[in-house]
Amino acid sequence: MKRLKSWVDIPKDSDFSIYNIPFGVYSKGSGHYAIATAIGDFVLDLDVLHANQYFYDLDLPKDIFKSRYLNPFISLGKPMTQTIRLRLQELLMEGGVLQHDLKTNREAFIKQGTVDMLLPLDIGNYTDFYSSKEHATNVGTMFRDPSKALLPNWEHMPVGYHGRASSIVASGTPINRPYGQLKDPAKESPDFGVSKRLDFELEMGFVIGRGTELGDVVPIHEAREYIFGMVLFNDWSARDIQVWEYVPLGPFLGKNFASSMSPWVVTMEALEPFRVPAPEQATKVLPYLREQRHDTLDIHLKVAIQPKNSLETEVCQSNYKYLYWTMEQQLAHHTINGCNIKVGDVYASGTISGPTPDSYGSMLELGWKGTKPIPVSDGTTRTFIEDHDRVVMRGHAGDQHQRVGFGTVETLVLPPKKILYDND
Amino acid sequence: MKRLKSWVDIPKDSDFSIYNIPFGVYSKGSGHYAIATAIGDFVLDLDVLHANQYFYDLDLPKDIFKSRYLNPFISLGKPMTQTIRLRLQELLMEGGVLQHDLKTNREAFIKQGTVDMLLPLDIGNYTDFYSSKEHATNVGTMFRDPSKALLPNWEHMPVGYHGRASSIVASGTPINRPYGQLKDPAKESPDFGVSKRLDFELEMGFVIGRGTELGDVVPIHEAREYIFGMVLFNDWSARDIQVWEYVPLGPFLGKNFASSMSPWVVTMEALEPFRVPAPEQATKVLPYLREQRHDTLDIHLKVAIQPKNSLETEVCQSNYKYLYWTMEQQLAHHTINGCNIKVGDVYASGTISGPTPDSYGSMLELGWKGTKPIPVSDGTTRTFIEDHDRVVMRGHAGDQHQRVGFGTVETLVLPPKKILYDND
Repeated sequence: MKRLKSWVDIPKDSDFSIYNIPFGVYSKGSGHYAIATAIGDFVLDLDVLHANQYFYDLDLPKDIFKSRYLNPFISLGKPMTQTIRLRLQELLMEGGVLQHDLKTNREAFIKQGTVDMLLPLDIGNYTDFYSSKEHATNVGTMFRDPSKALLPNWEHMPVGYHGRASSIVASGTPINRPYGQLKDPAKESPDFGVSKRLDFELEMGFVIGRGTELGDVVPIHEAREYIFGMVLFNDWSARDIQVWEYVPLGPFLGKNFASSMSPWVVTMEALEPFRVPAPEQATKVLPYLREQRHDTLDIHLKVAIQPKNSLETEVCQSNYKYLYWTMEQQLAHHTINGCNIKVGDVYASGTISGPTPDSYGSMLELGWKGTKPIPVSDGTTRTFIEDHDRVVMRGHAGDQHQRVGFGTVETLVLPPKKILYDND
Repeated sequence: MKRLKSWVDIPKDSDFSIYNIPFGVYSKGSGHYAIATAIGDFVLDLDVLHANQYFYDLDLPKDIFKSRYLNPFISLGKPMTQTIRLRLQELLMEGGVLQHDLKTNREAFIKQGTVDMLLPLDIGNYTDFYSSKEHATNVGTMFRDPSKALLPNWEHMPVGYHGRASSIVASGTPINRPYGQLKDPAKESPDFGVSKRLDFELEMGFVIGRGTELGDVVPIHEAREYIFGMVLFNDWSARDIQVWEYVPLGPFLGKNFASSMSPWVVTMEALEPFRVPAPEQATKVLPYLREQRHDTLDIHLKVAIQPKNSLETEVCQSNYKYLYWTMEQQLAHHTINGCNIKVGDVYASGTISGPTPDSYGSMLELGWKGTKPIPVSDGTTRTFIEDHDRVVMRGHAGDQHQRVGFGTVETLVLPPKKILYDND
């Protein structure tokens, strides 16, 4: 692969190397927004570049980069969005024409952290899969029969369910600990109260780049054409609410109080160099789930907990490549019945747990249902997430020579809001 | 109650009496739309009325009635939307000023059936509850342990799950029979094929009229302020796909291939006269689910099946009032964890089954899992829905003196589309 060098000063360990060029949306204040990319420590405003004729030959709508969400941009289609991505790469490379346009640079480059990065997508539909065999086995062992931890359908289909789109928030948005019904197994009736088993789930999501009509099927060998990019995703879960409510219709209030998403969508093209074989599927799958090459992406993932006034403690190291079901299989399955998909939909992977106990992607598993406390930096321990903890997820592919990363998705957990109700 | 008389010739059994004044959206062709009401056999174009100054004093945006969806109109808030509804009632009453404005009338009144009524809402979030005790008991009896048909959580909370928003279609949109994984209990592995147990679910949905922020709770005594109106809802289900996939995360591909919705949203104010007590809840509910008056709505519901080239056969008569959980309880539960709601969200009731076998709201129950064939008009029988069947749902409150109805939600079932895959 050709080595690319940028004229922008990019730290060696930056997720936003010249090889990445992700897309996001930032707030310019007073209800104004711009679509941007990230390069090194900078946010680069694409609307400013557009106004300065850097895309003059591309027949783009005038206001395309002023959108609140990426959806209209993504809807331009892969040929156009990839042309723009490659143009940006060209402009940012040593000798690129942007290098000496100081006037444009002064306006277009903004130091990261000085502006608010927003939820980048208008998410019409959000589905959460359950595609880690290790996670499904761990959960099945804890809550159901350990000898039949994996349910009969699990190796035949990428099991999933519909999640809540409205409560997906951007990284940096604090969440409140939720209330709900909690059932003490020793008691006959549930109590009302605050969740005591608040948990993260380390996930990644893929973003739809091309929609279908109701009744259409996305064939597995075409699935990649429908996927624009990926994000880091924290699927917040209240285990005590979930366990009482979820039979027979699945997770509901135990999940829909919040999910947190990274602000940058990394394109599939940027991730393509990091393809690796996916775990072998010993159970033969039906033809609509059969891939010509069963491969996935090597994306290193980490989770840290930062207690109030203390440092981060890394509690998990996992990898996207551990997932049993690939995103192509997930999408082929989701549409095999004709379910239509829309640009901006998010399809999350389910908790990404690896084979070793330090690679489990949730506190439920790391702390093994509350039985194995995890030490954190302030001298206390955690079996679940406490108020004022900040949970930080990170993800990147590659190494210092060619690194493509997602930045962070981080969330501060606040105490429950005061409400009127109690137990009697 | 004051008797109202319209100058429009309204058939006695019309769902769209002067007491109703629902809201919908119709297509004017070439990408133009208008918000309308229904009166008798007519669609009444509100954009034409607006252009002719019938709302001159109301400070409305100029294009408010040109929207593709009702969402911006609903977002005006109840005081405004009810003012408009009452203005329409006034204009349509004997002696109302519209009566003699023949020029406006010629443009504003369109015969129903001559224009396409569209899906009226941009549905950001769709939740399906499971609030009929009879339905939950029937399903539990058929698929789980008859002696424990109702699960332990059922009488403590309105159980629900997130459904798929993208595949909700307007009445009149045909659907294709879905493909999926089907598991013969006698075999070890699932087969790929076409659903043989395609079913309707007779439901109603309520539409959110006022949103909340993430973390906010809708207190049960304020729930009505957040509800704009109601629709008829057919939650299509493929029982054979559903039964194999739904443990442990709930319904997914067995449901998300389509749901059908009536085009007219009937406001809560039009339905208010039809309040009746809701079924007694013997199990004491937690305070956040306790109502000052546990009441519901008396809405008569019917389902008919019309085989190809034949007449309709009525297969079910039910009533919204049979539901154990009220919509106020559903909304209070949905938000108790801080889950935010948005204008245009749809919250469906779950299948509305009554106490007698002819009031069951699905073929699964009417045909008792395929064991009790139901005769239809062409001399054949049904245990589930066949290709080329048209399923028609109707609903209305009141009687000939004051009738407030929903029209129909009707759907033609087409054979499966041809696709590439088979079983080997």
